[in-house]
Amino acid sequence: MAYELYYWPGIQGRGEFVRLALEYSATPYLDVARGPGGMKKMLSLMERERVFAPPLLRSGKLVVFQTANILAYLGPRLGLAPKSGAQRLRLHQLQLTIADWLVEVHDCHHPVGVMLYYEDQKRESKRRAASFRKERLPKYLRFFERIIGREKQFSYLNLSLFQMMEGLDYAFPRVMKKQRAPALRDNQERVRERLADYLSSERRIPFNTQGIFRYYPELDAR
Amino acid sequence: MAYELYYWPGIQGRGEFVRLALEYSATPYLDVARGPGGMKKMLSLMERERVFAPPLLRSGKLVVFQTANILAYLGPRLGLAPKSGAQRLRLHQLQLTIADWLVEVHDCHHPVGVMLYYEDQKRESKRRAASFRKERLPKYLRFFERIIGREKQFSYLNLSLFQMMEGLDYAFPRVMKKQRAPALRDNQERVRERLADYLSSERRIPFNTQGIFRYYPELDAR
Repeated sequence: MAYELYYWPGIQGRGEFVRLALEYSATPYLDVARGPGGMKKMLSLMERERVFAPPLLRSGKLVVFQTANILAYLGPRLGLAPKSGAQRLRLHQLQLTIADWLVEVHDCHHPVGVMLYYEDQKRESKRRAASFRKERLPKYLRFFERIIGREKQFSYLNLSLFQMMEGLDYAFPRVMKKQRAPALRDNQERVRERLADYLSSERRIPFNTQGIFRYYPELDAR
Repeated sequence: MAYELYYWPGIQGRGEFVRLALEYSATPYLDVARGPGGMKKMLSLMERERVFAPPLLRSGKLVVFQTANILAYLGPRLGLAPKSGAQRLRLHQLQLTIADWLVEVHDCHHPVGVMLYYEDQKRESKRRAASFRKERLPKYLRFFERIIGREKQFSYLNLSLFQMMEGLDYAFPRVMKKQRAPALRDNQERVRERLADYLSSERRIPFNTQGIFRYYPELDAR
C-alpha cells in the first residue's frame, strides 16, 4: 500500500519537506489533497484522527502528523536516516531546529497573526524581517553550516536544508547573496542535481506568495 | 549516573517541561546551570556538542536537545510514555504541537524579535496578543481538551498540559477565566496535587516576566 501524503494543495509549505523525502527515495505515494475531492478527504481525515494541522502521512492504519515526526518515521524506512537510535535522535533534533527556523521565516510576513493578511501587518513585518535578516538568519546559517559539512551519511536533513536554502533564496534573494555558507551551498547544488526530474515536473509546486517562503521585496535587504 | 539537565537558571521556560518529567517520576538529576559555575558549563557543553539552544539533557555520553525530543527520549525510561512505537509517535506529535503553542505564547510579547526588549515592541505585542486570545488560544484549548479527556495512560503529555495551563493562568488570568476546558482543568488539578512537594520547593522557579509565560496586564483581556 502506497503512502498517502495530505497537505494544502496550493503551496509547498511544510508538506514539501515530506514530499522531498518521498521523491528523493523514489517511493510511491499519493498526494491526496491535490487529487479530485482531495481537500474534503484531508479535512475529514483530520477531524477523524484528531490532527492539529497538515501535513499528515497515512501508512496503512497509522496516521502521523507534525513534519519532523513524519520524517523521523519515514527516514529509516526510506533509507534516509542512520541505523543507530542515538544517531536518529540527533538527526531528529536537528530537524526540529529547522522547524523552529521555518516558523521564524513564516513570522517575517505574519508577525501579528496567522488569520490576518500580510497587507494588514506590513509595518510589523518590516521590523520582524529586519531582525530576522540581521540576527536570526545568520545564526541559523552558521549553525547548520558547521553541521552539514561534517555529516557522514546522507539523510533527510540534507533534503530539508536544501529546501531551506531554496526557499530563502526565493524569499530573500539580496540577503542570501551576502551570506557565506559554502557547505550549505554545496549540499544545495548536489541535491538539486539529484532531484532534477522532480524539480522540473508538475509535482513541484512553484514558490509563491501564499506559502511559508514569500518574496516581498520590502522584506529583503535593500 | 544521574541525568544532567541544562537550562537558563532564572526562568522556567522550556526546561520546565523536562524538569516536570524528572520530578514527577522522582528521578535523580542535576540541574547543572543552576549550580556553581553552571552557566559556564552549559555554554561550553553547547559549543562542544553543537547544541542550538537549551534545554539539553546529558545521559552518560548522550547529549539530547529540543524539549520534545528530550521528552521522547526520557518518556519510556521514566514510565511516562506508552510501550508501543505507534503510541509513542502519537504522543510525540502532540508534544510537538504543544511546542508550537508555546512559540505562539512567547511571540505574544516578542512578535518583532527575540533580541529586542518587550518595551520596544509593545504596540506589536498588543496586536499579536489580541489575535492569540481570540483565535489561537481557543483553538489549542479545544484541540487538547478533546485529547486529554480520552487519554488512557498518564504520560508526559499530562505534565506538559499542566504546565501550559499554569503558565496561561499566570500570563492571561482574565482570558483564562472565560475558557471552558473541564478536562484540562481536571488534569491540571490532579497533576498539581501530585507535584505539591516539588511546586512548593525552591526547585520550582516562580513565573516571572523574563520567561516564556509573562504577565503583562495590557496583553490580557480587559
